[in-house]
Amino acid sequence: MRLAQALFAPRAVALVGASGDPSKNTARPQRYLRKHGYAGRIVPINATRDEVLGERAYRRVADAPGEIDHALIMVEDVEAALEDCAAKGVAVASIYSNGFADAGAAGVARQARLVARARVLGVRLLGPNSMGVVDLPGHVALTVNAVLEADALPSGRTSLISQSGTMLGTLLSRGAARGLGYAKLVSIGNEADLGVGELVELLVEDPDTKVIALFLETVRDAERLARAARKAHAAGKPIVAYKLGRSRLGEELARSHTGALAGADVALDAYFRACGILRVDMLESLIEIPPLLAGRKPIPRTRAARVSVVTTTGGGAAAVVDRLGLHGIELAGMHDLTMAGGARAYRATLERLLADAECDAVLAAVGSSAQFHPEFAVQPILQAQRSDKPLVAFLTPHAEASLQLLAQQGVPAFRTPEACADSLAAFFAWHAPRQFGDGARTLPGSVPQLIRAPSPNWFEVVASLGIPVAEQAVVQAPEYAHGVPYPVALKRLDLAHKTEAGGVALNIANAGELTMHARRMGQARLLVQRMEAGLAEAIIGYRDDPVVGPLALVGMGGTLAEIYQDIAVELAPVTEDEARAMIERVKGLAIVRGYRNLPRGDIDALARAVAALSRFALVPERPVREAEVNPLIVKMDGVVAVDALVMLKE
Amino acid sequence: MRLAQALFAPRAVALVGASGDPSKNTARPQRYLRKHGYAGRIVPINATRDEVLGERAYRRVADAPGEIDHALIMVEDVEAALEDCAAKGVAVASIYSNGFADAGAAGVARQARLVARARVLGVRLLGPNSMGVVDLPGHVALTVNAVLEADALPSGRTSLISQSGTMLGTLLSRGAARGLGYAKLVSIGNEADLGVGELVELLVEDPDTKVIALFLETVRDAERLARAARKAHAAGKPIVAYKLGRSRLGEELARSHTGALAGADVALDAYFRACGILRVDMLESLIEIPPLLAGRKPIPRTRAARVSVVTTTGGGAAAVVDRLGLHGIELAGMHDLTMAGGARAYRATLERLLADAECDAVLAAVGSSAQFHPEFAVQPILQAQRSDKPLVAFLTPHAEASLQLLAQQGVPAFRTPEACADSLAAFFAWHAPRQFGDGARTLPGSVPQLIRAPSPNWFEVVASLGIPVAEQAVVQAPEYAHGVPYPVALKRLDLAHKTEAGGVALNIANAGELTMHARRMGQARLLVQRMEAGLAEAIIGYRDDPVVGPLALVGMGGTLAEIYQDIAVELAPVTEDEARAMIERVKGLAIVRGYRNLPRGDIDALARAVAALSRFALVPERPVREAEVNPLIVKMDGVVAVDALVMLKE
Repeated sequence: MRLAQALFAPRAVALVGASGDPSKNTARPQRYLRKHGYAGRIVPINATRDEVLGERAYRRVADAPGEIDHALIMVEDVEAALEDCAAKGVAVASIYSNGFADAGAAGVARQARLVARARVLGVRLLGPNSMGVVDLPGHVALTVNAVLEADALPSGRTSLISQSGTMLGTLLSRGAARGLGYAKLVSIGNEADLGVGELVELLVEDPDTKVIALFLETVRDAERLARAARKAHAAGKPIVAYKLGRSRLGEELARSHTGALAGADVALDAYFRACGILRVDMLESLIEIPPLLAGRKPIPRTRAARVSVVTTTGGGAAAVVDRLGLHGIELAGMHDLTMAGGARAYRATLERLLADAECDAVLAAVGSSAQFHPEFAVQPILQAQRSDKPLVAFLTPHAEASLQLLAQQGVPAFRTPEACADSLAAFFAWHAPRQFGDGARTLPGSVPQLIRAPSPNWFEVVASLGIPVAEQAVVQAPEYAHGVPYPVALKRLDLAHKTEAGGVALNIANAGELTMHARRMGQARLLVQRMEAGLAEAIIGYRDDPVVGPLALVGMGGTLAEIYQDIAVELAPVTEDEARAMIERVKGLAIVRGYRNLPRGDIDALARAVAALSRFALVPERPVREAEVNPLIVKMDGVVAVDALVMLKE
Repeated sequence: MRLAQALFAPRAVALVGASGDPSKNTARPQRYLRKHGYAGRIVPINATRDEVLGERAYRRVADAPGEIDHALIMVEDVEAALEDCAAKGVAVASIYSNGFADAGAAGVARQARLVARARVLGVRLLGPNSMGVVDLPGHVALTVNAVLEADALPSGRTSLISQSGTMLGTLLSRGAARGLGYAKLVSIGNEADLGVGELVELLVEDPDTKVIALFLETVRDAERLARAARKAHAAGKPIVAYKLGRSRLGEELARSHTGALAGADVALDAYFRACGILRVDMLESLIEIPPLLAGRKPIPRTRAARVSVVTTTGGGAAAVVDRLGLHGIELAGMHDLTMAGGARAYRATLERLLADAECDAVLAAVGSSAQFHPEFAVQPILQAQRSDKPLVAFLTPHAEASLQLLAQQGVPAFRTPEACADSLAAFFAWHAPRQFGDGARTLPGSVPQLIRAPSPNWFEVVASLGIPVAEQAVVQAPEYAHGVPYPVALKRLDLAHKTEAGGVALNIANAGELTMHARRMGQARLLVQRMEAGLAEAIIGYRDDPVVGPLALVGMGGTLAEIYQDIAVELAPVTEDEARAMIERVKGLAIVRGYRNLPRGDIDALARAVAALSRFALVPERPVREAEVNPLIVKMDGVVAVDALVMLKE
């Protein structure tokens, strides 16, 4: 594994642009490597000096003696430095310099040229705009991140890949204060060459890494990361992500900050679910959740998750349970213990609950004793017989020593009720990566041809996917003759948003009315469609997202549902079972699921339609950009498409 | 102010049930009072010993020499202890003992007896189930809360009232670790006598208190607290609350935990808004927000709030901004600074933004320099010229020393992006207490009589409030004669949920059809109502909530809206302007606010109807428990009530 070795455990590193002024950022890597005990050779490269911070320096990498595995480039002329590195046979160049994809269109072009050249030269790139790499167990601090000013940083079994260089320091610093250490940390920068997906693959192979944490602003290599996530799952290494861009404002910011497509948050949620990547909502969850995940796999459940709580602080426990309730998690039981009961009883209660099939996790909410009497409530947590079932602690006071103890023993412990609930919710929502290999999802053979016809009939395409379509006919002036039974609807063929434009007439009872409406529309060719009524109008959709790829969507139809954004999204294609689970998540579709004794709609037919439309993902070369059946009428028996819209890629 | 003095600054305290075993909870108050430098007399009361922990002890309070202002009762026989205290002229008894309203129906009765007796005896009670009182500037640590084991706890200008005794310790402990101190802290327990409202009143008068923080599980004295909140506002003392019970699970827990009505969360939200009490969502916000509030008043704004961000860590700033976006807060600008630019430029940027009318607050997101180089980004924050506009800091690394510095100078600083965004959102959502004195909201004189009629006609009552009602008549078998123009609806008079029970027939075109439907319903008397159609169906409501009192409600009508719980609630009565603001918050009513060029409904008429129904709050003795007009048809011109339901209290 030459790449992993050069990246994380280089025998020698060149610091291109190393400064002799210790106050400069560019002096940091040399200081940090020494400070944290790097055992390899450090080779400062400086244009004007023969010695930098007491070490022999060279003008060019090529001038330095011996083999050099990894160079950290901190100069403006990255291109020249790359050539220099290549001449010396450097395997990996980490680029701290910016001015590439982070800097507008010219920067994007510059980055593309740099990557192309690196490929030719056989040098792998980390960055540009990367703060470098840290391997704590290996004593490699090849970074400009100031967090390495700290004298001692604990090693751990979590490795971090961060799209934000500064946040790498944040997580390391906050974790260290709690005794939560890291193995490897990578600031991935612009991901011009080495991306999150490839890094995850390297970490899957890394014996020091048990949990992989991601700090993300976007996803640039969705397919590769998805493959890597499957490998991680197979290797029993959970991946947890914190991703910016929950709000529209956050999405815009991520876009402007990274120069990358940000992707709709709902699409990314679907992507992470499909990859088996847990997503946490709070920053501290990303630091605190790894011990909850280490060595665990997602567990399928057929009921809501249940937590048993053992507590010495009713208010503190309630602060967690209140938020668990917002995630639909249930309380299996609340056990109030007092110090008078003693540590033995506390431990016995924990062990009894850990053995109880009625709950899926045990939460110990510890009050002031965590600060002043850890022997009462913290020691029993440490001593309790471990089981597959998670035992997590929330400490209400400022109790850093107890947090350290728990961290050292690998017990998940949380500083805030919110991160505790967020982490438990993410854990319970965790699924294995979805399998897309299902043979049942083959594409009807006629579909690709129909799509590529000169002017495709989208109703025909939708019908050929297996979605029932309202009986219809194209009628011509002046007779407008057709065989569709009345009442019918009359629609213009040339408009996408027909309703707003007056291009639709509904409930036409006979030929006379039809002719009248047709003349008013003033079109030679019009569509006549049988009027369909049902219990509800749904919308089903397909979208080839530029960030995460094909998506399937189902939601309530109509204006109100549009306002409420009541939709469920998953990566496409989906099976009928998966579509049924999506339908379950659409709140408004309760009206066809038996809400208030309303008649039940044909959920199976709706699921079949969702799955059918999602098969656009299977068309070779994926020509469809977006497709929508809106409305899809849901009846007691079957569904029927009343309108269909398909947009192809350019 | 005898009460405040006896409660917070007693000249002598009796510790009833003080233990000589230092490991017991009941030994703590004596140890803590000494440890934290209490200057008054400490009088241990012990049934068997003449000396407790080195101090002269007495069998009974009455045996002790000198005047005693405050007793802390820690024995089971609270009733006897109370008599003893009264005999000695003790003004306030804080009761640590439990087994009262916290312990089922028998406990509730016991508590009622205790309070009644205390009233007779002229002793004020704190608790039962209270952990006591702390006054840090006054060196009074009259509490069993173990947080007082800490050697030094910083004083501050925030006072806390907590319904959870253990959480009092949590907040004190966490604040102390950050340099965020408190003035007074009260564990209010069951509030048998002294409640949150009265305590707030005392704190309004307290010169040491600038901000009042509440940790709540319920609200037991809504009217008194509302009055107190108005006084606090007038005195320029902001009140901030963290209240459990966001989720149904949390509500249930609070109910079981406190033995009190929990109250629907949406009602409590309305209550806090009306009182001018800020509500924070995260526990740490309650600790961290006071410096943001101290000395400030709510500021009316006519546009979305805007924040300018100054940052050295793009990822850290984005983590806050992303969440601000979820609250509808906008970004006025993002200013990336580097250490190379220096502290002077950093400060200049802060001061320029603080003077800029385009933003409502300035957020400094500080990266690793907060930990290693506070002179660069923390000192400029401390030195920046203060203005009325808040300057808040979010420090991304573990930087306790910097947090301490900021706390000492009163600069609001946050440990997590979530609490930072939560606190800013609460600050921007802050309003002055609502004024209910408006003369425009007088009740039509006929309403009280109509309500109290033997079998009230609710349509008549609703109409007399000023809400237009669909033209209607009661018809009799066998002719069912009436003068309402067709088409009409026919409704049974004897059913509340008519639609589900087949008690409604719609769109009846003529007398023949009417007779047919009437016979099918098999009732001698039925209601005929003119069919009404409009742009949307709304629901308007009134409820006299047992916790917070009268509430006004407006929402979308129909099943879908019910599923989405798309409603706005405020304390009743509301003015038309307030009703308009409520309507603005109902997402689904966008369809009558001009969404997608749909025709606009008569929002003014809807607002008049909401305000009219809310006037049930003005009926003397408030006989109405709940009222609902559903649907209220919203037309382009006017609204009309099609169904009305009123329930009186028993």
